[in-house]
Amino acid sequence: MSMNTFGTLYRVTTFGESHGAAIGGVIDGMPAGVKLDLESIQHQLDRRRPGQSAITTARSESDRVELLSGVMDGVTTGTPIGFIVRNSDQHSRDYDNMRHVFRPSHADYTYAGKYGVRDHRGGGRSSARETIARVVGGAVAMQALRALYPDMCISVYTSRVGDICMRGDGIWYAPSLIDSNDVRCPDRAAADAMRSLILDVKGAGDTIGGVVTAVVRGVPAGLGEPVAGKLHAMLGAAMLSINAAKGFEYGMGFDGCCRRGSEMIDVMESRGAGEAPRFISNHSGGIQGGISNGEDIVMRVAFKPVATLLREVATVDDSGADTTLHARGRHDPCVLPRAVPVVEAMAAMTLLDAALLNRSARII
Amino acid sequence: MSMNTFGTLYRVTTFGESHGAAIGGVIDGMPAGVKLDLESIQHQLDRRRPGQSAITTARSESDRVELLSGVMDGVTTGTPIGFIVRNSDQHSRDYDNMRHVFRPSHADYTYAGKYGVRDHRGGGRSSARETIARVVGGAVAMQALRALYPDMCISVYTSRVGDICMRGDGIWYAPSLIDSNDVRCPDRAAADAMRSLILDVKGAGDTIGGVVTAVVRGVPAGLGEPVAGKLHAMLGAAMLSINAAKGFEYGMGFDGCCRRGSEMIDVMESRGAGEAPRFISNHSGGIQGGISNGEDIVMRVAFKPVATLLREVATVDDSGADTTLHARGRHDPCVLPRAVPVVEAMAAMTLLDAALLNRSARII
Amino acid sequence: MSMNTFGTLYRVTTFGESHGAAIGGVIDGMPAGVKLDLESIQHQLDRRRPGQSAITTARSESDRVELLSGVMDGVTTGTPIGFIVRNSDQHSRDYDNMRHVFRPSHADYTYAGKYGVRDHRGGGRSSARETIARVVGGAVAMQALRALYPDMCISVYTSRVGDICMRGDGIWYAPSLIDSNDVRCPDRAAADAMRSLILDVKGAGDTIGGVVTAVVRGVPAGLGEPVAGKLHAMLGAAMLSINAAKGFEYGMGFDGCCRRGSEMIDVMESRGAGEAPRFISNHSGGIQGGISNGEDIVMRVAFKPVATLLREVATVDDSGADTTLHARGRHDPCVLPRAVPVVEAMAAMTLLDAALLNRSARII
Amino acid sequence: MSMNTFGTLYRVTTFGESHGAAIGGVIDGMPAGVKLDLESIQHQLDRRRPGQSAITTARSESDRVELLSGVMDGVTTGTPIGFIVRNSDQHSRDYDNMRHVFRPSHADYTYAGKYGVRDHRGGGRSSARETIARVVGGAVAMQALRALYPDMCISVYTSRVGDICMRGDGIWYAPSLIDSNDVRCPDRAAADAMRSLILDVKGAGDTIGGVVTAVVRGVPAGLGEPVAGKLHAMLGAAMLSINAAKGFEYGMGFDGCCRRGSEMIDVMESRGAGEAPRFISNHSGGIQGGISNGEDIVMRVAFKPVATLLREVATVDDSGADTTLHARGRHDPCVLPRAVPVVEAMAAMTLLDAALLNRSARII
Repeated sequence: MSMNTFGTLYRVTTFGESHGAAIGGVIDGMPAGVKLDLESIQHQLDRRRPGQSAITTARSESDRVELLSGVMDGVTTGTPIGFIVRNSDQHSRDYDNMRHVFRPSHADYTYAGKYGVRDHRGGGRSSARETIARVVGGAVAMQALRALYPDMCISVYTSRVGDICMRGDGIWYAPSLIDSNDVRCPDRAAADAMRSLILDVKGAGDTIGGVVTAVVRGVPAGLGEPVAGKLHAMLGAAMLSINAAKGFEYGMGFDGCCRRGSEMIDVMESRGAGEAPRFISNHSGGIQGGISNGEDIVMRVAFKPVATLLREVATVDDSGADTTLHARGRHDPCVLPRAVPVVEAMAAMTLLDAALLNRSARII
Repeated sequence: MSMNTFGTLYRVTTFGESHGAAIGGVIDGMPAGVKLDLESIQHQLDRRRPGQSAITTARSESDRVELLSGVMDGVTTGTPIGFIVRNSDQHSRDYDNMRHVFRPSHADYTYAGKYGVRDHRGGGRSSARETIARVVGGAVAMQALRALYPDMCISVYTSRVGDICMRGDGIWYAPSLIDSNDVRCPDRAAADAMRSLILDVKGAGDTIGGVVTAVVRGVPAGLGEPVAGKLHAMLGAAMLSINAAKGFEYGMGFDGCCRRGSEMIDVMESRGAGEAPRFISNHSGGIQGGISNGEDIVMRVAFKPVATLLREVATVDDSGADTTLHARGRHDPCVLPRAVPVVEAMAAMTLLDAALLNRSARII
Repeated sequence: MSMNTFGTLYRVTTFGESHGAAIGGVIDGMPAGVKLDLESIQHQLDRRRPGQSAITTARSESDRVELLSGVMDGVTTGTPIGFIVRNSDQHSRDYDNMRHVFRPSHADYTYAGKYGVRDHRGGGRSSARETIARVVGGAVAMQALRALYPDMCISVYTSRVGDICMRGDGIWYAPSLIDSNDVRCPDRAAADAMRSLILDVKGAGDTIGGVVTAVVRGVPAGLGEPVAGKLHAMLGAAMLSINAAKGFEYGMGFDGCCRRGSEMIDVMESRGAGEAPRFISNHSGGIQGGISNGEDIVMRVAFKPVATLLREVATVDDSGADTTLHARGRHDPCVLPRAVPVVEAMAAMTLLDAALLNRSARII
Repeated sequence: MSMNTFGTLYRVTTFGESHGAAIGGVIDGMPAGVKLDLESIQHQLDRRRPGQSAITTARSESDRVELLSGVMDGVTTGTPIGFIVRNSDQHSRDYDNMRHVFRPSHADYTYAGKYGVRDHRGGGRSSARETIARVVGGAVAMQALRALYPDMCISVYTSRVGDICMRGDGIWYAPSLIDSNDVRCPDRAAADAMRSLILDVKGAGDTIGGVVTAVVRGVPAGLGEPVAGKLHAMLGAAMLSINAAKGFEYGMGFDGCCRRGSEMIDVMESRGAGEAPRFISNHSGGIQGGISNGEDIVMRVAFKPVATLLREVATVDDSGADTTLHARGRHDPCVLPRAVPVVEAMAAMTLLDAALLNRSARII
């Protein structure tokens, strides 16, 4: 993980700005011999796509991906997979008033300070459109994971929006249930309440944050490289790199720190000689000592409310003078529903990378 | 960050097991020309040392570090700094009953599964004694940071133990105040209560978790490499790699996800032409778009209760049969006080790495 | 350097097959603030382009590069530069007879063995068309180098073809002199003889090898990272990664190993107090202890004769049976003239990477 | 490969100066489950040790290695192997006259320029004593390779000293034959002549260069990662990083560039259905398209004459003034005999790294 490349052996390098010609990337280290289902890649992009419902941004992009290399007769060849998604619905004029003005709590000020120049159109590189490339990288990784571990299945959903928390958080849910509503929360009553809340804040020109939960079933034991490459540290870095992420926890997380060890240890019991033992609880969240133990991996990512408000806010311009800004452009009132496929992608990329690294753990 | 190496340009590679000959490492990428204060390195090791107070493990180690290279006449030469800390007070016999038995919620089972072999003595490589090498790496990094940014100062403290939360969490405190008690909590009333709680759980053969807060003052704007090397993602990976860490958040963190954007944006105002603007709040925790903005970096790390209980627990052995284990050995009832210098070390290592990477951001 | 990415801080990741949709890549770590001259990038591609003269392959590709990101108003922004060059003149049918047959001394057999699948069309990923992406990466790097070191100039030329060696090898020559003939040899008499030799072997359906020399003037002292990142080792890895490269040497190279130390040491003499000393010879080739010393960097790369002969050769098919192959397709009888811009590109990429790494050598 | 770390999955990080406390390193990524023969590690160190014969330096070091971690009951555990070799016979006073004087063609001037400070005692970090750590890393790697590929055997020998070339260069020789003389040349007549030449130049206070050849038998097909991680490029970088190396070639190397393709292609013929084909020649040197093809890997490394002459030479001091230097200290008149085990170590480290990387090439 450095600069614009995720991963060590399964490596996804991304490029592209919100209002540039294209978003794209290179997937390096995809093992050869995987029959690639292009529709499932596009399906994940469609889940991330703007304009998919009343609670997401109105920007209209078809976000069709073109794979440029690395696949022959539908099968991966072991060579890098280059891909691009053309931008088409840029309204760059909407951003003219931001050329010299820093949006509060955005990356505008920090990019300008770091690089001396910045692309002010739609957030440039710091736009969440960059996550398109991650969704492609994750959807490809998922197909390698399925070939390796047919039972592995990643379940990612919105578990909290504002003060509304779902019931049954931390359990694995079927993808169809998650996608049965546009909030992507498997608790339908909570989903309805979350949707109302999002529309309320949207109506007020405001935004709201929340939490995404990811549960991975069918992870083999042994993934993760101590000390510096612990599985949860790599998952944490991947999740925290998503736009608007402010926190990451796994297993008992922050809540568990007020508990006693006697409440929190995961006791094992025998399933019979020669069988892997059974864990009678999973406070560890599927990871012990940085290595997966075969139980479900359970993790949560906190997302802040989007910083772009559709109302006038005080700020400064690049000459250092006070000014105000009334953002135009098209923005999500709540990133959670569209963050769900991005979290899923980062989980898949990280787990495949860990699976490949684990191939070197033993001599045989 | 991979396997046993932290960092990209400032790289700390660690080795060593709890009951092996030594813990040590190699610091690579330390810039030349830093006058190295060896006492400040040893001071940090002393803060991490076992047996320093009634609320820490009784293992008695002097933990004297020997630097083997990379320094001449007290000044760094730009070449790698090898170092070792000899182990001396191993009571390996205490662990004989664990040779074939997996301690619940420890790395015993996952190491055995991953590698086929494991060092059962004192946790082997998964022991927190490994953090000795990080403390050395961090103390050296801190001296480079001070040479670069004289105003930078890292304040790390215990902010919560069990249900007891300090008042004034998230503020910068002087190191002397933090070290004025053995819990390392700058709120003395809370510290007293935490100490009582730790002694209570210790008396019951139990353990307790908590939260460490880190606040870094004097960070220059511009540190952090988007997209895959965001500053908070690198800090998160570093912190999550510490033994017993279960969660990481920065700025508004998990709590902020229930708030509205209008409450959470950090508005800037002018300090006059040619001056950097003033932020009137710091919900961002000093990082926007993955790049530091010059405000205090504020972050929190959640630590679980230690898994080793000094009472009998049910578990399985490596033949898969049920058994019980009554741990001997010497263990901390609460890792928080000794985790404080480790969090500080990881912060220093990550910030120096980010500072060196940032030297390539612009052509001039 | 790993898999499909060159470099540590200036990183060029490439993708694409000879007969796929496109060749392309991502340039990561390009410093912000460089005014980018697109024509000079295209100029280098034109120098590498097939079909440019009677002594190169007849494949006709315009090889127009499209930059997709990382540049705004003509200036680099510090974000990754994605780029593609579309393939257009594939004659994939020419390769139908190679689907199941391994061309001798090609990568056909090794790719099939390694990956289980292979793209047989035009060599797939092992085709020298991949070097398009390197030429783009190098041309961009060159512009950063020029901004940093206005005196730096890379001179790369064909110094030997078969038995014909130029006079004056190892000296810096002006680009215009090098490009004054299609062999790219600055000794015109030798160039004429080389050209005749290439046409002779081409007429016989055969191929011929040679040597490319690179001389870099204006390199600052201090580039190169001992021990594992020595400047000449990084240059060597970069050059040896070029298709058909079989050897690399710098300075006195292989010939110097039969000489005595007293003949080969580069003595320095004073240029006056406060001035850098003068070297009275340059057997070191501008690099001592893996670090540049300010003298011209001089290096040579040996290229084998192209393995594809336009005549019938014995080989085996993928069932393991004997067969013969009469290659069609369009091929160079000698790679040297077109390898010249690729060597130049690899030199530029490596030197920029070294220059960025060197920014971390000292504290100030 | 960067700074002081070799390798991607099998990573050897080294530290230590010639006259510091110790040379050492960390081996990371050694697979678990290898029974480690400590004597074979020490044996390789003894082959590299100074003072072993009349044609090597008189410095007397026992060079005993101490492994500090990563091994339990004689078996590797998958955790990093830290190790140190104490320096004992430093005669640092011999170097007092070099504190302010740059030895010609040494790294003195370049280190001083790069870092601002330098360790003048015995070359500091640029001393060939650093290769001790590589020899340990290589000897450990060799044991993993033997466990993986029982037929693999690396044969490294001195093939040329000055003008004296052995007969039969490029063939595999038994280690016992190579070590039957102190030049480590398997052609005894040539070895005698080389020995006389080395003693002659030594007597004259001069030094001489030469060539080391390495032949690896029993390499499986499939090692090497195109495009940036070609096997010969990684081997080349490894070899060129050895002190005094000036050139690297494999297979037909520089000589082959004057030959025609029809002479140089390696034709395959059938060994029967289901069998791997036979190559009837090996001009490729065992590597095609950057990937091993199962034939012997054949490569050569050119070493310059040692720059330290035991006679007076002109040079400059660190104030920029002319001066002369008469080196004392103890130096090799010819590095070749002691370079042999270092070349062997770099080959083993690189091949193990490639073998581990290759485990990710295919999905199954």
